[in-house]
Amino acid sequence: MNVEIINTGSELLTGSRLNTHAQWLASRLTALGYHVTRQLAVADHGPAIQAAVREALGRADILLTTGGLGPTSDDLTRDLIAQLLGKTLREDAAALENIRAFFAARNKAMPERTRVQAMIPEGAIVLPNANGTAPGLAIEVKPNPLRAAGKTSWLVMLPGPPRELRPMFETRVASLLREKAPPETATASRLIRTTGLGESLIEERVEGPLRHLLDAGLEFSICGHPGEVEVRVTARGGGAEETARAAEEILRAALGQSVYGGEADTLESVLVHELARRKATVAVAESCTGGHLANRLTNVPGASNVLLAGWVTYSNAAKTKCLGVQVSTLEAHGAVSEPVAREMAEGARRESGATYALSITGIAGPGGGSAEKPVGTVFIGLAGPHGSQVAKMLNPYDRETFKRVTSQQAFDLLRCHLLVR
Amino acid sequence: MNVEIINTGSELLTGSRLNTHAQWLASRLTALGYHVTRQLAVADHGPAIQAAVREALGRADILLTTGGLGPTSDDLTRDLIAQLLGKTLREDAAALENIRAFFAARNKAMPERTRVQAMIPEGAIVLPNANGTAPGLAIEVKPNPLRAAGKTSWLVMLPGPPRELRPMFETRVASLLREKAPPETATASRLIRTTGLGESLIEERVEGPLRHLLDAGLEFSICGHPGEVEVRVTARGGGAEETARAAEEILRAALGQSVYGGEADTLESVLVHELARRKATVAVAESCTGGHLANRLTNVPGASNVLLAGWVTYSNAAKTKCLGVQVSTLEAHGAVSEPVAREMAEGARRESGATYALSITGIAGPGGGSAEKPVGTVFIGLAGPHGSQVAKMLNPYDRETFKRVTSQQAFDLLRCHLLVR
Repeated sequence: MNVEIINTGSELLTGSRLNTHAQWLASRLTALGYHVTRQLAVADHGPAIQAAVREALGRADILLTTGGLGPTSDDLTRDLIAQLLGKTLREDAAALENIRAFFAARNKAMPERTRVQAMIPEGAIVLPNANGTAPGLAIEVKPNPLRAAGKTSWLVMLPGPPRELRPMFETRVASLLREKAPPETATASRLIRTTGLGESLIEERVEGPLRHLLDAGLEFSICGHPGEVEVRVTARGGGAEETARAAEEILRAALGQSVYGGEADTLESVLVHELARRKATVAVAESCTGGHLANRLTNVPGASNVLLAGWVTYSNAAKTKCLGVQVSTLEAHGAVSEPVAREMAEGARRESGATYALSITGIAGPGGGSAEKPVGTVFIGLAGPHGSQVAKMLNPYDRETFKRVTSQQAFDLLRCHLLVR
Repeated sequence: MNVEIINTGSELLTGSRLNTHAQWLASRLTALGYHVTRQLAVADHGPAIQAAVREALGRADILLTTGGLGPTSDDLTRDLIAQLLGKTLREDAAALENIRAFFAARNKAMPERTRVQAMIPEGAIVLPNANGTAPGLAIEVKPNPLRAAGKTSWLVMLPGPPRELRPMFETRVASLLREKAPPETATASRLIRTTGLGESLIEERVEGPLRHLLDAGLEFSICGHPGEVEVRVTARGGGAEETARAAEEILRAALGQSVYGGEADTLESVLVHELARRKATVAVAESCTGGHLANRLTNVPGASNVLLAGWVTYSNAAKTKCLGVQVSTLEAHGAVSEPVAREMAEGARRESGATYALSITGIAGPGGGSAEKPVGTVFIGLAGPHGSQVAKMLNPYDRETFKRVTSQQAFDLLRCHLLVR
């Protein structure tokens, strides 16, 4: 069963706007058990939209379009699709009343040009818009002249603004599709998030244990991000849920403590929740990551119960004044060194009174490297009730990737420490 | 001239990943004068990739693909496209050496399966990857059997990770395309970045002054992001460069000091460079933004010359201990108040010795609001050699948008202060 998405909008093809519809719809459709096979963006240009819809209707069981239902001259989707399907447009009384009510509720006169939004292709189901004037439309293309005999397609046209599209999908489209064009087969999917292992190594470790499930049709994908790798398995058909569960168990066993969480987790959310569960607190002392650790931790709701304080101490003076790093240590070993990382972590823990403290000192680059300490060298300190430790890493990346990867390693140092305590 | 983008990756069709490549590439291609006509995402599935590439090669003068060049079994693009074009793969010595060097620089053994990334279709131009192991590939499909006689197409295959794709595009692909397949008509484009004004207000201010150029065909677009709005003008044909320059002058005059920069600027980079030019320094004291200001400033190369220190002081105890905020001030006014913001900024300036200090204290939400101080209330302090000031804002957004908008306002407070000094 093919599900396709077409996003119309010139702003998507000039790069003025990020296409968040594609991700949102794909994620919702996947959760409902559908398999999205294509996502296409085309400009607000008549022939381009018609060609795209014609091609997609030749393949898709379900086609969703976004945008082009508004009242202005570049809102072309409704007319073009009616033309393509050979349907005439008629004014729908309920849709017109919804437009009138929208303006009345805002004490505004209804602009005459908005009336065009009440024009509906014959046979279409009107999807009322609770947050705007353009109704959505659902049409069963039956029979579909563009497909093999007997095949039909559902065409669902959604308005462009996210605050209109999302509620319309949730309240009307999801149930309509489940009723009229349910997913062919049961689908079950698991995503696990790992850190500390590369993509190749993960594949090497899991392909043997997973082999019998892969041979039986389990889908498997690996996706790398800076400082982490996600692994997804999807099973279809009878016993999908059991197969997905078995696959997840195999992955977790094969990858051990490098697995930090599932679909909805981030490394920082896992860490904040684990610290909160233990009623433990943390402080961070950052040099080259410049606030990135603190920023990530404070993106997690509830971080205020866990993060007591953070310091960004670029200069040696700040390391000494704020964290009590000894001048003699800085002189003997340099700011990027194991002893300074240790004193930063211990100082942050002492000054804040936190259970744990993480510290980072390193060379983010592009300048500042040497033969002994090349660009990307970083020391990560962890101080806690059982003493302190320092890990040395080499992360020779651009500045933002350096920060991301280093913060992953720092969070993981504390996460793995907590696992054995 | 048709330019198409195909993004491969199952994670795009399950909604696991937001497609930022589509926007980034479309934006860069548009700036270079190309007109992107389609963007398509397909899964890591052989027949789907081949069908998509075959169709696109039937239309496109330039086709860019992203993803599928890695070492794992779901990295299919290279093999499938070679097969589609009837090209054999051969191992490229330079590409292999780059892979070896990548692992050697990280003191890691080269996994045998990464060697497949050195396999290159015959006749392809190898685009070295400075930030990863998979080289990009550019192939002139000449003649292109899928198009009318005499037409050729350029096919450019880019690796999936943004930190690999973006530098490869900038250093190799942009110049290759300009040389081998230049845009049909002269195009000149300007982007200006503003903060402090909404989209509607900007449109009102500029549409009169720009009218004569718009009537003559100037393209104009406005795109809002949290805490800033970008305005793009594009002129095509004869005199494009002069028209774009005139439009930029009109925009800058109409929008005044709300314009902070152009295409390549960020608000933090403008601020860091302006402070460096004045040999001034800055410190930041953050409560509810939790390190976001420091993190953004330290994303700018050269920030270490400007940012002396940063504090993340969530708790009242940390505000008092680290920044010298008076307990009596906290008790009389609460942590989220004008006097506390002022004392935080003054304390950060005093403790760090910086020329300027910015402070933030507010209620990010979702909890913690009251009738007097609703969620989103934030005080932004600025201390400097001429005294201190505090701005009160209301930013009732989700947590990450709150941080972004508040940091824009804080940076802009200092930027506008410097403009008049």
